[in-house]
Amino acid sequence: MKKAVVLLSGGVDSTTCLAIAKSEGFAAHALSFDYAQRHRAELEAAARAAKTLGAVEHLVLALPLGTIGGSALTAAIAVPKDVAPEAMQARIPVTYVPARNTIFLSFALAWAEVLGAADIFIGVNALDYSGYPDCRPEFIRAYEAMANLALRESVEGRIEIRIHTPLITMTKAQIIKRGLELGVDFAMTHSCYDPDKLGRACGHCDSCILRKKGFAEAGVADPTVYSPAPNLETPDR
Amino acid sequence: MKKAVVLLSGGVDSTTCLAIAKSEGFAAHALSFDYAQRHRAELEAAARAAKTLGAVEHLVLALPLGTIGGSALTAAIAVPKDVAPEAMQARIPVTYVPARNTIFLSFALAWAEVLGAADIFIGVNALDYSGYPDCRPEFIRAYEAMANLALRESVEGRIEIRIHTPLITMTKAQIIKRGLELGVDFAMTHSCYDPDKLGRACGHCDSCILRKKGFAEAGVADPTVYSPAPNLETPDR
Repeated sequence: MKKAVVLLSGGVDSTTCLAIAKSEGFAAHALSFDYAQRHRAELEAAARAAKTLGAVEHLVLALPLGTIGGSALTAAIAVPKDVAPEAMQARIPVTYVPARNTIFLSFALAWAEVLGAADIFIGVNALDYSGYPDCRPEFIRAYEAMANLALRESVEGRIEIRIHTPLITMTKAQIIKRGLELGVDFAMTHSCYDPDKLGRACGHCDSCILRKKGFAEAGVADPTVYSPAPNLETPDR
Repeated sequence: MKKAVVLLSGGVDSTTCLAIAKSEGFAAHALSFDYAQRHRAELEAAARAAKTLGAVEHLVLALPLGTIGGSALTAAIAVPKDVAPEAMQARIPVTYVPARNTIFLSFALAWAEVLGAADIFIGVNALDYSGYPDCRPEFIRAYEAMANLALRESVEGRIEIRIHTPLITMTKAQIIKRGLELGVDFAMTHSCYDPDKLGRACGHCDSCILRKKGFAEAGVADPTVYSPAPNLETPDR
């Protein structure tokens, strides 16, 4: 089996992406990051997804993104609540983490080189998303071009790196339907940026809103247990 | 003053690169990494260089490259000794760290975005070097193109990221001369991949050999204190 590195946050998109990589016949090496994110509860979801969907292994790397800050997910900035989906892309929200996908893909690239893998899967989506720059197709293509000049293989010519983005043109509803076809149990996934102390989703952040909208549009019951007492603090900008 | 992020390992090249950034009028924010490198002694050299050359601040980030491995600098692989400079580029040596510059530049990019800096300096050199793929001009240009699609500014259009490589076409001797012109004290720099327990250079690894060659060609005394008892273990491949 060909090896692939699969970036796995434990949300709807990356979990479906892992299921797709498996369905395409790859031996999936799942990679998650503990980066001081407010929603570290997602790492438990990622571990469950890796195990349930049959990843070969699941590596969790600690990254000092909290030291760099600059995001509501890694610094003392309020997570915006109750923003309408159509308003999310008007301005990149404060939940954007500077260069996050660039950093995540760079570790995936390093690990791929050590594993001898040519394939990297990332569950970015440029339709039902928050307008993050590093989820756009043009970013991914530029990253792939760079990656093919970055490695030992770029010089010695053995491997061509391919960044797979099977979800990039799908709606959240389509992603959910595809995941269900592949046997994903979405009850085990975590999307919320601002969970309560028990790890339950707030239901009001951009990520919860996009998740709810996706299940509604797919005509499927959302299995998420939402917090009865979410943090609805007013965003500070 | 315009801000720049300057990648600083504490060796001849990155220290000279910091002096150049300063000489061009940038407020230099120096960035180093503790990545389980065999030669962590370089971090003390980096701290000395940042202080002496007037960096605004010096950030050291811990990265889990030891977990990924795949290099003589981060794993239990012997560092090659006494390789002739002209032989170093015949095959990429085992001291190559998978995707290292991709990862380092990605953290520099994240920090630049938070600082509001458009300029990143990296002391890569594609003449007197070990043939690492991620030191080549074509890699740097591809990285820069990707970086300009990766950030908030890529969408909102405020900043164009520039990756400065002032040393890329210089010989080691030219770099040393330029550093001396700018007041760099090379006694405080560290190049060796495999220092002894007291942090003294081995004098036999690729990095020591290129350093010695550079000082010799520049006609300048090498101020390095070499170990009287270097590790000359035979490389395992």
